[in-house]
Formats: sequence, structure tokens, C-alpha cells
Amino acid sequence: MASSSPATTFLRSSPPYNHRSTTIKCTSSQVPTTTLDNNSHAKQPSLKPFTAKYVPFNAVTDESHSLDEIVYRSSTGGLLDVQHDMEALKQFDGKYWRNLFDSRVGRTVWPYGSGVWSKKEWVLPEIHDDDIVSTFEGNSNLFWAERYGKQNMKGMNDLWVKHCGISHTGSFKDLGMTVLVSQVNRLRKMGKHLVGVGCASTGDTSAALSAYCAAAGIPSIVFLPANKISMAQLVQPIANGAFVLSLDTDFDGCMKLIREITSETPIYLANSLNSLRLEGQKTAAIEILQQFDWEVPDWVIIPGGNLGNIYAFYKGFKMCQELGLVDKIPRLVCAQAANANPLYLHYKSGWQNFTPITATTTFASAIQIGDPVSIDRAVYALKNSNGIVEEATEEELMNEMAAADLTGMFVCPHTGVALVALKKLRESGVIGKHDKTVVVSTAHGLKFTQAKIDYHSNAIEGMNCKFANPPVEVKAEYGAVMDVLTKYLNKAS
Amino acid sequence: MASSSPATTFLRSSPPYNHRSTTIKCTSSQVPTTTLDNNSHAKQPSLKPFTAKYVPFNAVTDESHSLDEIVYRSSTGGLLDVQHDMEALKQFDGKYWRNLFDSRVGRTVWPYGSGVWSKKEWVLPEIHDDDIVSTFEGNSNLFWAERYGKQNMKGMNDLWVKHCGISHTGSFKDLGMTVLVSQVNRLRKMGKHLVGVGCASTGDTSAALSAYCAAAGIPSIVFLPANKISMAQLVQPIANGAFVLSLDTDFDGCMKLIREITSETPIYLANSLNSLRLEGQKTAAIEILQQFDWEVPDWVIIPGGNLGNIYAFYKGFKMCQELGLVDKIPRLVCAQAANANPLYLHYKSGWQNFTPITATTTFASAIQIGDPVSIDRAVYALKNSNGIVEEATEEELMNEMAAADLTGMFVCPHTGVALVALKKLRESGVIGKHDKTVVVSTAHGLKFTQAKIDYHSNAIEGMNCKFANPPVEVKAEYGAVMDVLTKYLNKAS
Repeated sequence: MASSSPATTFLRSSPPYNHRSTTIKCTSSQVPTTTLDNNSHAKQPSLKPFTAKYVPFNAVTDESHSLDEIVYRSSTGGLLDVQHDMEALKQFDGKYWRNLFDSRVGRTVWPYGSGVWSKKEWVLPEIHDDDIVSTFEGNSNLFWAERYGKQNMKGMNDLWVKHCGISHTGSFKDLGMTVLVSQVNRLRKMGKHLVGVGCASTGDTSAALSAYCAAAGIPSIVFLPANKISMAQLVQPIANGAFVLSLDTDFDGCMKLIREITSETPIYLANSLNSLRLEGQKTAAIEILQQFDWEVPDWVIIPGGNLGNIYAFYKGFKMCQELGLVDKIPRLVCAQAANANPLYLHYKSGWQNFTPITATTTFASAIQIGDPVSIDRAVYALKNSNGIVEEATEEELMNEMAAADLTGMFVCPHTGVALVALKKLRESGVIGKHDKTVVVSTAHGLKFTQAKIDYHSNAIEGMNCKFANPPVEVKAEYGAVMDVLTKYLNKAS
Repeated sequence: MASSSPATTFLRSSPPYNHRSTTIKCTSSQVPTTTLDNNSHAKQPSLKPFTAKYVPFNAVTDESHSLDEIVYRSSTGGLLDVQHDMEALKQFDGKYWRNLFDSRVGRTVWPYGSGVWSKKEWVLPEIHDDDIVSTFEGNSNLFWAERYGKQNMKGMNDLWVKHCGISHTGSFKDLGMTVLVSQVNRLRKMGKHLVGVGCASTGDTSAALSAYCAAAGIPSIVFLPANKISMAQLVQPIANGAFVLSLDTDFDGCMKLIREITSETPIYLANSLNSLRLEGQKTAAIEILQQFDWEVPDWVIIPGGNLGNIYAFYKGFKMCQELGLVDKIPRLVCAQAANANPLYLHYKSGWQNFTPITATTTFASAIQIGDPVSIDRAVYALKNSNGIVEEATEEELMNEMAAADLTGMFVCPHTGVALVALKKLRESGVIGKHDKTVVVSTAHGLKFTQAKIDYHSNAIEGMNCKFANPPVEVKAEYGAVMDVLTKYLNKAS
């Protein structure tokens, strides 16, 4: 991460390359002449530079903190939000930003090949390109779910699945972690005493944290409850060299200990209330608009557990509206597992007092959360987007996951939750046949092979696995094989 | 797969979109004026149209077959090759092709967002865009292995890993399968009687086949030996709705039966000698050149089992040279597991008579092949690229996989084989410190979690797992945790 990047030119210097790990390219001839790179517009003396700071989330106060401070909560213990200087960004119109972002898609010039860092001015405007830790995250497929929409969603012809999980570590967490680890990398290079980054997570967060830290050569530390986690959940942080501590306590005990440790030591806390991560996650929303040539979908459906992601999507869409890239935002739907549905209950109560619940086991393990840290952010996003909350039982979510797979996808159970939400809203007529709708898929199905195996083996107690497709045993003889094949093909045609 | 695609324009029509499932975009303003789409250049009467046909591989004969014929082998039982009309392609110079391919990176216009179909004229020039079955394959990250190269490969600063496995089904097989299934889709639409596609495969091939068939609504049929395959190996075809037949025979018995069945029935055979698949796979080579702004690397290292892929890379590089996009090709290295090394032995014998072997178990399961179908293709590619063959023992390949993971990757054992080959060639000085080198990673590490778990649990008999990183058990008390953390951080810093 030490190469020099003469980022104001599109030409490549001698190795190490300034295009570094980015991949696909647009040559300089394709870049609109209005395009300026790396905040060089902001370096013009007449222009206000692009900046961002931490402020308390949705509060009337003068409190603010530099992004170079190490701070996780406001002075009153509330959530923080990264606030961009919108006046500076508004020095350029929507067309300018659309052209700029479009010109960077797939660039070989570091770091713009990343779907996150192609929106750098809106993410971390002040970071130096050389400090960025990126694995070419983002630019994931917005898959036209043609067969699935027509067959499973009552003839929908404008249904899309945003495959955020086809990524370096296999989940959307890469989008946020590239921002968090890049900022930590910057702080370390500035001389701040930060010896590592820690988290208490058994899943995608620890995987993404350890991968980005490993790429940057920053120690990562993962706390988890002994005897409650399988090696399969752990294999990514372990492989990526995290220092994994197995503690004789439960998950809450791990959270408590890592908070204590990070408050007393120079270890940065990568927990789920971290507002830097949302800055990366919001780029998925901008990317969806971009992939539709800046046409705004009617609906975006997002699985929700700790509830940071739904706010991140809201923020991405809202910034595009405020800065004139689009003239409206989509209605957001948050989809929860019925076994972990505190937001759903809150929504159904007409946003009366929020009550945390005790979540029970769900196949959608990453959203098995009863007391979500970003509840305020989610409610804000939903209220301001005319949003809806839906829920899915275990049987519903697993069957819908399987139904999607049958049309060529290989989605995770969380995506199943979102698809059930869509199904219910289609059945009630809230979402129309021709509504342009995006379902956000948060992880690669390869992270959930055991759940899929159990499903297709009909091995889930009490579940009617409607689409189970176990192998058919046949004698290895031409005649016997032809018999079953003929029957199958007659049925299939 | 039924939308109309007015592909000669860059503008989007009303839904269903002609940009369909593609994602990232370059707007029309960015497209060089020399760019023409969808073979429209070839429609100019004065120009020769782009065409391709099957010919016997590397043979002097007049035999040829239309790509719309269903034929797997030459009349003498040899391999086939897809031969493009190079004179037609040479009507345009290298600069034209570079600009055309560059202009299509990340396009929202179907099907050019795909890394395979952005090279459509060189792949299947005559297929209609609407017949293409694509999941936005290709455009995978060419990752600058900066930490790994410096630390593990004696100070290399120009080492890159091409992550072909960060893809829809998690392996490079997507690149070839999009071509095969698209052509089958075309044949069915032309009225050819093809009721499905079959293969005998326990791994990535059946996964990719069933996913693409599911996306297109074409039945897929997978044959495999009963009681020799775990559900984990099967979960992708099963989830994607393949008709999976479990036969009381071994793998060779399955191959024999599927050959018989497909020769007697209208089921297309998707086996590994299929030359259509290589047309898709070769685009990974073109993409590497493109990602380096058309600078040619010195070395490309590819894991080899059935040996189609090394020829596909050779073919991609060679076409770029012949058509003037670059002026040379890289030296190719084929990397084999020592437990499945017939090509290595053949190379070491000075290309004397080739002898198939009985391969034994290797963690690099996809290349556990003793009698490779594409042996002639591989030898041709290596002889014509001043190539080398190397091998890796189980301990070597697993340790090198783990070493790469420690620098932020999450690679499969096959990539481990390729990295060992690099290491040996670095140690012998054949590959120099400053040589621009690409290692091809063929599958996502998430497909090999069990192997990684076994490695990091030190549970592989007889193996010195040098980089095993098991969790550390600690009492859940502040003092105890601080003690181990302090020791770790002192060591890490």
C-alpha cells in the first residue's frame, strides 16, 4: 500500500502501478472532459474543498468530531453519523456527478475501479489514495431476475437482484470494511497509536475485517464465545490471520469485553454502530441508480438485523436526490426474520415505543438480532422513504431461497427473507406487477451450503421443504437410466 | 431471455431493458467514435462478416463443422477447436479492437457488461444478443498481491492474482459455461431438438452448468457415482434444479453412461472436451492484458488438471498478438498437483511419449486427473509459449494457500498449486524479482472451507501445517484477555 499515485493524470507510471489492484478500464479518451480526479476540483482556490465530519445522528447540537478522531458515540452516548459538507458538493450539479461516477466505472486507475472508491468524494473525501485498502469491492451484478419474477412473483418483468455477496469475502460487509480499514490505515500512517482493529462477531463482519486488515498488514482481533461457534463460521478470520480469542462466555459477554478492552487500549473497535462503514455501504444504493442509467426504482427491499444497512441505502439514495443526480428516492422495505423481528413489531405498532426482543434461531443467522444497534437510523430511513417492514418465517424464507435458486441464482437465507417480503407485498397488491423493484442480496450462497444441504435433504425438522431436489438413485444400466430420464424429461417439457 | 435488444444503439429502450442483467456503465458519450456494436461493422456490405466454425484441433484437413451442428469430436475421434475467420477480424487493426473492448467495460448495454461477451466477435460472432445466457461473468479482480509478493516471493513487486473465482457460481467455469449454454439456447430457439444438457461432474462444472441452465430454463442433468460424493459437492446443482442421478458405479462408469445416453438422446453433452467452453475461458487472458492497459506480463501461471484452461489462455493471448493488440505473448506455466502430475512427467521427459497415470487424492480436487482430455491442447500451448510445467505436493500447496490467505486473499487449493510453482521458479531464479507475473486463481476459497478448517485445526495427518492459526482459549476476564493480547501485540509489532 505504498506506491505513489499521481492521481491527477490518467497515465500509468512505472511499477508499482498507480492502477494497482483495480481491474477493468476505460481509457483516458473515454473520460468526459468535465471529469477531474481525486478532489482536484476542490483544490481550485475559488472552490470549497470537500470535507466530512462526525456529528450526532439526527440531533440538534453543535457537537462534531474530525474523522481523524477515534470516537464511536456522541457525547450523550448516541449514534454518530458522517456528515458531508453538502454546500461544497453542491458546487457541482447532478449531471457533473453522474458523469464523474460513470467515467470511473471499471477504471484501471487506483482506486476508482472499486465501486466504493469511485464515489470517493462522497465517502472519505480527504483520504489519500495511497492509504486506501481496497479489494475491488462493489460493481456487483444487478441481476435481472427474469424467470423468477415472471414465475414466482405474479408476472413481474422488472425485478432485479443486487448481488452484493459476489465479492472478495462473500458478503456486502466488504463495502463498509474497505472504508473503516482505510481510515485506520490513514490514522496509523498519521502517527496515531493504533495497534490493531478488534470486533466481536461470528460471521461476515469478522471475515471482512480480517481480510482487509491482512491486505493492509494491520493486526485484527476477533472475540467469540467458546463452544458456541463452528469452525466453518470461523474459517475466514482464522485463514486471514486474525488473532481469534475464544472466551468462556456468551456473545454479549464477548461484546462487553471487547468494548472494555478497546476503550483501554489502542485497538480500534470495528463494531456495528461504526458510522464509517455505512459510508461504504451507501455506495451500493448509488451503484443501483447508476446501473439503471440513473432511473430510480420504485422499491428497494433490504434484509435487516442490526439495521445499519437500511439506513446506508437511504443515505445513498437521499444524497443522490439532494445533489440533483435523481429527482426522487425509492420506497424502502426492510425484511426481517419472524424469529428476530423487533423492527417489524415496532412498525406494526405504528412506531410506538420500541421494545427489544430475544431473537431465536434463524437460518438467516446474520440478522438474528433482538436489540438492533441502529434502530433509530432504520426508523428514520423508513419514515422518510414511505417505507414498509415485513417478516418471514423460517419455512417461508427457506422455500423462497430455494425457489430463487431454481431460476439460476444461489442466494443466502437473508435474501430469502427479502424475497418473502416481496412476495407478501405482491400478493397484497402493494407492489405492482410493473413496479421496478430491487432485492438486495447480502451474502454469497456459498456461505450457507449447510443450510441448503439440510433443506434439499428434507432434514429440517417440521419444515415442508417444498422445492427439495435430492439426487435420484438409479442402477448404472442404460435401460434403467433411460427410464428415469424419459419420465423426467416428459415432465420438464 | 426474451427481450428485444436494439443493440446497434446505446440508448435504452423501454422495459424489459436491453441492458438487462449487466451492471456498471459507460455512457454513450464515452464510447470512442470508432466503436461499432454487435457486428454492425460486419454488416457493411464491403466487409467480410465475422464467422467461426469447428475444425479438428491442430490437424491438416479440410474437415469443418458449423457451430450450429451438434458435434463433440472430429471424424477421426480427435479434439475440435473453434476457428475464427481471422481474415475478417483482421479487417480492423489492433487499436480498433483495443478501443472496442475498452469501450465496453462495465457497459449497461446487454450483453457487453459481461467480460466474456464484451469480446463477443471473438467468441460467438454469430449469436443473437437475445440468445445469450449471462450472469455478468468476467471482469474479475486482477489483485495486486503486494504484501504476498514482497514477503513470500523474495521481494516481487509486480505480482498479480487473477481472481476468476469471485463470480456467480464461485469458479472460472462460468466463463466457459455462459458460451456453451448460450449456444444451446440458440440451437433450441432455432428449432433443434435438444431437451437438455448433461454432464458427469462432481464439482465446478456441474455447478456452472446447472446455474446457467436454470437461468435460461433449460433442463440440466448430472450423473454421479453413489456414495462417493458428499452433499457439499452436490449442493449447487441440486439447488439450481438439476436432475441429479446417483449411479451405483464409479466416476468412469458415469462418464461412460452419459456419453452413451447423450449419443442416443437429444441431450447436449457438456463435458470437458467441449471446445465452445474454451472460447469463453480464453477471454480471461484478453481481460488480463486489458487490465494492464495492454502491457503483456512476462509470466502467467495456471493450475492444470484436464488441461483445457491452459490452452484457452494461450489462445486468448495468441489472438491478441495475431490481431495486433499486443506484440508478444507471456510465457505460460502449468502447475499440477504432484498427486496428479501426468503433464509434469511428460514435460520432464522432454515431451517424450505421454503416459496417463492414476491420480491420487489431492486437496486440489478439481485437478485430480490422471488422463487429461486436453493433453494435446496443453502441450501445443506450452511448446508455443516457451512454457514450463511445475508440481506441488499436498503439504506445499496447502501451506502456500494459507500463506496467501494471511495477506488478505482467500484462495482455493488449486491457486495454492500455482503459487508453489511460482515459488519454485522464483527460488531457481527462472522468474525474476521484477518479472510481471500473473497467477490465475480458479475458484473462490468459500468452496474449500472444509480443507481450510482441517488445515487450521492441524487435523491433516502427516502434514506440517506451518501457518495453522487456531483460536486461542482464554478465560472471559479482563486481566486474562489483556495478558494474551499484550503478548500477541508485542509479537505482531
